[in-house]
Amino acid sequence: MNPAKTDLAEQITSSDRRALARAITLIESTRAEHREQAEALLQELLPNTGQSIRIGITGVPGVGKSTFIEAFGLHAIEMGKRVAVLAIDPSSPRTGGSILGDKTRMEELGRHKNAYIRPTPSGGTLGGVARRTREAMLACEAAGFDVIIVETVGVGQSETTVAEMVDMFLLLLVPGGGDELQGIKKGIVELADLIIVNKADGDLEKAAERARREYANALGLLRPSSPEWPPEVTKCSALNRDGIGAVWATIERYREIMAKSGGIGRRRAEQAKAWMWNEVSDTLMNRLRTDPKVRRRVGELEEKVASGVQTPGKAAQELLTLFLSGS
Amino acid sequence: MNPAKTDLAEQITSSDRRALARAITLIESTRAEHREQAEALLQELLPNTGQSIRIGITGVPGVGKSTFIEAFGLHAIEMGKRVAVLAIDPSSPRTGGSILGDKTRMEELGRHKNAYIRPTPSGGTLGGVARRTREAMLACEAAGFDVIIVETVGVGQSETTVAEMVDMFLLLLVPGGGDELQGIKKGIVELADLIIVNKADGDLEKAAERARREYANALGLLRPSSPEWPPEVTKCSALNRDGIGAVWATIERYREIMAKSGGIGRRRAEQAKAWMWNEVSDTLMNRLRTDPKVRRRVGELEEKVASGVQTPGKAAQELLTLFLSGS
Repeated sequence: MNPAKTDLAEQITSSDRRALARAITLIESTRAEHREQAEALLQELLPNTGQSIRIGITGVPGVGKSTFIEAFGLHAIEMGKRVAVLAIDPSSPRTGGSILGDKTRMEELGRHKNAYIRPTPSGGTLGGVARRTREAMLACEAAGFDVIIVETVGVGQSETTVAEMVDMFLLLLVPGGGDELQGIKKGIVELADLIIVNKADGDLEKAAERARREYANALGLLRPSSPEWPPEVTKCSALNRDGIGAVWATIERYREIMAKSGGIGRRRAEQAKAWMWNEVSDTLMNRLRTDPKVRRRVGELEEKVASGVQTPGKAAQELLTLFLSGS
Repeated sequence: MNPAKTDLAEQITSSDRRALARAITLIESTRAEHREQAEALLQELLPNTGQSIRIGITGVPGVGKSTFIEAFGLHAIEMGKRVAVLAIDPSSPRTGGSILGDKTRMEELGRHKNAYIRPTPSGGTLGGVARRTREAMLACEAAGFDVIIVETVGVGQSETTVAEMVDMFLLLLVPGGGDELQGIKKGIVELADLIIVNKADGDLEKAAERARREYANALGLLRPSSPEWPPEVTKCSALNRDGIGAVWATIERYREIMAKSGGIGRRRAEQAKAWMWNEVSDTLMNRLRTDPKVRRRVGELEEKVASGVQTPGKAAQELLTLFLSGS
């Protein structure tokens, strides 16, 4: 017995791209009234969400991520899909250009009527950016996109955050003599459901195959995160659009296996609950950190704790008392 | 201008073992008045803490962890050290016996006057157990123990928690044909500063050397957490007390390098600040979760969020409003 949809919700579910863009702008706004409107809109859209495959992609700069996403996105479109690309990059402002900011990136994909590319919102904490991306993902699903790609670079905790909002997590690497993982943050490899060795072309073709085998061996030493899907390693040349079909086929196979086992449904239910608790915890801690009484005291307490003249427990107690005592 | 020490603090800093045991019992108590006394005591002891090397050890059951700790502890005592052993095992009650509960474990070490073994406190959340262990560690340092071992099994997040409270993290493994890491949770390998292949004796001697080489290769693919210390792999036979001296020497070398670079000091300052914020966040979230108004509502909200009929954001907002509205 849902109430009649608002105009904006109606337009989004009729795949109106400008309505979608307006919705995401609303989602990204930090103004309290916008936040409330965004929450209401998402609640309206919720029944129309969830039908996409949510794919996270990470890789350090230079690995060919945009070339890959362009090739991959166009392939998915050829397969009859509609593709949305979002990004999480809390470190760089929108104008920084390090991710999705460069307008020449993914030019062909960006122009396609069945693709929607949204640059990363500027600034804010990782928690804030993550929320906006999760919400933008729901809006894209409501607008009928059936492949959602969330892109990130190896900065801070952003890969973990992305892995926690998608159905499948892809790690893009380049061949480079056995120490290719040197630039990758610890723990990222273990988040991957699929490792893709890119630049398997020209001079690097043999090295790419060697790297693929090495990673496959190294992965064999780790316990898979899903019992029904041990992580795989494949190679491709995004530049020559070679091996992209195989990546797509692997994703389809993953989706089939995980749908059959109920793995994706379970993963999403857990993600949604964790998201709720993260929101609770982030909002609460944010209120504490921005509390004027806390702000006046926190620098000195941190210093005392770091230099070992005050116990962390006593300092924490003081901060809590300041926060909960009211204004 | 510290006030005169209380009797208990005085006794602890004079290495009185019964006073130390009383202090840890106080630390483990959940009663509010005890908590306050414990905080005050720790604040008193703080100037006498920090001089030990804090070592975390993990490994799945069957890897020979207690045999190793016994051999290692006795070796450290031979080197003139005083050794305390603590444990984090949030999953098992004290009587469960899965860790440090079995009185026949570490018999020789347990009887030694320069060793102190404290079984894991029963029950509670990982956060709670972690706090008590961190505090017990400080009490042991104040009592003059200069090697503190914190033991854990591969359950939940406990290894990460231990790694975040020690100077150096050791992972114990057994040889077993290349898939030894199968039983180890993802991410644990990457926490290790030193991997030790145990049971390098009898029939397993060759397999141990093979495993050592394999791990060394696999580690080469990962970026070290400290630039000045790429993780190492060594082997030993705790049973024959063979290779234990080499482990000790590696720890000394680690300590020297990290002391010279200031790495240990930086790590501890960061750990102390993170501990303070964890306390703040844990306590705040604990108050929210136990709030009667929140408790009446949370089950239904979680279910709605998991089944996709309510957005996580709206559910979070409702919980926060309930909590912050006062009683």
